[in-house]
Amino acid sequence: MELFNYFRSSASWRVRIALALKGLDYDYRPVHLVRNEHQLPGYAGHALNALVPLLRLDEGQALHQSLAIIEYLDEAHPQPPLLPADALARGRVRAMALDVACEIHPLNNLRVLRYLTGPLGLDEAAKMRWIHHWIEDGLAVVERQIAAWGQGFCFGETPTLADCVLVPQVFNAQRFGCKLDHLPGVMAVHARCMALPAFARTAPDQCPDAE
Amino acid sequence: MELFNYFRSSASWRVRIALALKGLDYDYRPVHLVRNEHQLPGYAGHALNALVPLLRLDEGQALHQSLAIIEYLDEAHPQPPLLPADALARGRVRAMALDVACEIHPLNNLRVLRYLTGPLGLDEAAKMRWIHHWIEDGLAVVERQIAAWGQGFCFGETPTLADCVLVPQVFNAQRFGCKLDHLPGVMAVHARCMALPAFARTAPDQCPDAE
Repeated sequence: MELFNYFRSSASWRVRIALALKGLDYDYRPVHLVRNEHQLPGYAGHALNALVPLLRLDEGQALHQSLAIIEYLDEAHPQPPLLPADALARGRVRAMALDVACEIHPLNNLRVLRYLTGPLGLDEAAKMRWIHHWIEDGLAVVERQIAAWGQGFCFGETPTLADCVLVPQVFNAQRFGCKLDHLPGVMAVHARCMALPAFARTAPDQCPDAE
Repeated sequence: MELFNYFRSSASWRVRIALALKGLDYDYRPVHLVRNEHQLPGYAGHALNALVPLLRLDEGQALHQSLAIIEYLDEAHPQPPLLPADALARGRVRAMALDVACEIHPLNNLRVLRYLTGPLGLDEAAKMRWIHHWIEDGLAVVERQIAAWGQGFCFGETPTLADCVLVPQVFNAQRFGCKLDHLPGVMAVHARCMALPAFARTAPDQCPDAE
């Protein structure tokens, strides 16, 4: 398999964690978002959404969207599972992952921040207030769920899809200098995850294209 | 089951479609977003993200996030399936759904539009340019996938999770006066879906709380 990704893209890191938890080998293909390499015809031709990450299977088919890729990996390579067995528990894990992937991350990714400072003409301070607002409020939603369902990890005692999504979002929060004092449960899960090689060795600064 | 939702929330409509496709009965519980009823303690106490939709099961447990709810319904009530059987095909359907749920909808929901016109002080014209930009570009990504995988519906010949998510997004696009000429595949799928009772009878103007 080949993973097209960018070291600092938190959606890319989600998939690197899942691949590492599954013990799956892959070739790392860097796509430099800041240099707009994701918009070049050669890449956009097989990434139907012209975003990272993209997983290309050994048979050549490509799959995009990090959560779709992780669910695919969990179905094609079931051990260790990244979702619980029970349907409602699976729903709870997915809800936590989506609370990050739908309510926080889309508001703070590169193309949106570019629109804020470009067409909307926001200055750096207003951009940072926007970032802090969505991340700090959004992670508080995850905090409540960890309090309800977590036992070391986001849900239960082993890493799931929710941890694959949460840890890269915390990295972004720290990078942007967000307030984290109101998130003891989130930060405890983050520390627990980062003690595992699957999270630590796939971190942005460990990537071949790290700057 | 009880579905807490708002007639005009496109994330709520996704779940109403899935419930209708499955032939499942539920009690409709309106939560008026514009009047901030989702932030009242009574509601936010069981909706851990203080958003709609929320599904409360007969046993009392609550589940939020529309895509997590639909996946739960598909696992707990498998017929008719809203995802194909093959793992890669399931990934493709999820990727289309996430291209709407993560890349389009989060940028145009009520709380984000309120931030644009409130703290950021955008005027109506700038707000509409923002809305049009993300919806028109975002639906073009879905258009390419329908061209690749669609056979009447988003993926294949029967409605899937992707159609549950696309149709409410097209409704929003029309409501905001977006350009749709570049989306013949999307609009053909939309027409095909709206001819089915599960889509037509759950539309915003058919809801008990419609205004």
